[in-house]
Amino acid sequence: MAEKKLSQQTAKFKRPPVMLASYSIVGKKEGEGPLGKTFDKVLPDDYYGERTWEKAEGKMLAEAAATAMNKAGITADRVDYFLAGDLLNQTISANFAARHLGIPFLGLYGACATVFEGLSLGSMLIDGGFAEYVVVGSSSHYGTAERQFRFPTEQGTQRPLYAQWTVTGAGAFVLASEGTGIRITQATVGKVVDLGTKDANDMGTAMAPAALDTLVAHFQSTGTGPEHYDLIITGDLGRVGMSILTDLARRQGINLGGKLEDCGVLIYSPDQDVHSGGSGCACSAVVLASHILKKMEEGVYRRVLGIGTGALLSTTSVQQGETIPCIGHAIVMEK
Amino acid sequence: MAEKKLSQQTAKFKRPPVMLASYSIVGKKEGEGPLGKTFDKVLPDDYYGERTWEKAEGKMLAEAAATAMNKAGITADRVDYFLAGDLLNQTISANFAARHLGIPFLGLYGACATVFEGLSLGSMLIDGGFAEYVVVGSSSHYGTAERQFRFPTEQGTQRPLYAQWTVTGAGAFVLASEGTGIRITQATVGKVVDLGTKDANDMGTAMAPAALDTLVAHFQSTGTGPEHYDLIITGDLGRVGMSILTDLARRQGINLGGKLEDCGVLIYSPDQDVHSGGSGCACSAVVLASHILKKMEEGVYRRVLGIGTGALLSTTSVQQGETIPCIGHAIVMEK
Repeated sequence: MAEKKLSQQTAKFKRPPVMLASYSIVGKKEGEGPLGKTFDKVLPDDYYGERTWEKAEGKMLAEAAATAMNKAGITADRVDYFLAGDLLNQTISANFAARHLGIPFLGLYGACATVFEGLSLGSMLIDGGFAEYVVVGSSSHYGTAERQFRFPTEQGTQRPLYAQWTVTGAGAFVLASEGTGIRITQATVGKVVDLGTKDANDMGTAMAPAALDTLVAHFQSTGTGPEHYDLIITGDLGRVGMSILTDLARRQGINLGGKLEDCGVLIYSPDQDVHSGGSGCACSAVVLASHILKKMEEGVYRRVLGIGTGALLSTTSVQQGETIPCIGHAIVMEK
Repeated sequence: MAEKKLSQQTAKFKRPPVMLASYSIVGKKEGEGPLGKTFDKVLPDDYYGERTWEKAEGKMLAEAAATAMNKAGITADRVDYFLAGDLLNQTISANFAARHLGIPFLGLYGACATVFEGLSLGSMLIDGGFAEYVVVGSSSHYGTAERQFRFPTEQGTQRPLYAQWTVTGAGAFVLASEGTGIRITQATVGKVVDLGTKDANDMGTAMAPAALDTLVAHFQSTGTGPEHYDLIITGDLGRVGMSILTDLARRQGINLGGKLEDCGVLIYSPDQDVHSGGSGCACSAVVLASHILKKMEEGVYRRVLGIGTGALLSTTSVQQGETIPCIGHAIVMEK
């Protein structure tokens, strides 16, 4: 038997993969937010020269992956696997990006936790000896997600104050078996958690218990706690979900105070009319690819626990009266 | 650096994972086909006691996974990862099955190649030392797929003769690091191939070049050919796609004659009015979980190359004039 690298739910890497390069592209609104200057590219408009928002989303993802490879100084033929997914039906942004890139492709679906699922799996493929280079990416687009999951975008339907705003953007990462940079040292793959919420506008409330479940599993399987990390960053809980997670953790005796931040809260300023914050696969992907990794490179954070969160619903499941299954996937990044 | 187990596109397992158990559930029509007696369970009707086809599909997948674990003699808490996906928007069958099972969940999207993607990845996780047990599953349902991808089912729209029939069913596999049984010795993850077909009814024509691409990559990276295998089994090319693959391979100097079979051709008899054959994520999953593994256990086949094939389109991509990106993932199974 292969020596097992899994302690309960957490995989510990013997030769932790290096995050060799990352690249982020965002839309106009994200570029106007507080992290605007940290992104690699800000689009002038959300069509990006394409006839549809869907084509623009796929183009962003392909470009993010290709440019991350350029930054890493490698060509596509040296990359063993492209791991990607997105929110669109049948994950077409990832599929068309994979067509463009020509790299062996493993399609993922983890809703807004996709990039953390990809970074977890990609790290296992490298540490397991199956790859030297893996590219991981994910994307979302306000226009494509709104009209698919909610209402026709042109309708301008009023949104509840606890709703979140889907981030337009794409983020990509090159993982490598060798090199210098921030390393992924552990990964905790989440279980599906569903406490019975049904409001598809209230993703923060639905996802917070899944984030907690993975957080608790991670701390238990590694014998650590919040004090072990300089930062605990969640994917897209938003203001509502972040507050719920803080409360739920406190009831378990875990004090996240001062350590917890959320990509969905960081990406927009309160005056940008996004209510509870950002969401979408791109939310955690672009904030991680820019702001978080930059702060780690600068030495502001040396050890970060990141938890991507995903709501695994569909319009059909909601229409059929189902509650919302959610998931959280965590990785540990160390400088 | 970890010793690389990848030779070009093919991963070779040092400690090949064992397919400890499998389980297949199918609908009434599939039960009436030539493989009817090989499936573990045939449903009396396609609602399976649920109010919607979607709920029936998720129930089949959860039951297939749970029963495969029972057959393997293990409980869910001993399984490290559940790898699953399906055709429905946001892969809800897999998400709800994962909620039911409570196993750390890695959601996949590979269209009808999903179960082969899962078996490839699951084998890497085990051989890489990250898991002792992995459960892989996939499902599809004629009722859910038709109304999502094509027309309202009740409309009874006439289908072209080259169209395929979505298999109602679910298949699941328990992979283990130790035990006796058929082993997965290699995996070749495919690249996206798109030769420009646009007819969403003609999946065989669209997918055959992707199957060929993976087949050629596999033979080149392993230095083998069709003569090395007792059987080469494709996922759901159907009669049309199988014939095209045979022709395309011949032009590359590869003679598949007598070695090639297709799950989509095997699962229905010509008088079942399914035109070119079966398709859907369940097609290859249930035929592999029953017929193929049984024949291997009986010693009829000792070394089998299986290639799952997937068409990575969506209704949106088709409506926006896109051609159909396709993929093939291959595994080698040995007794």
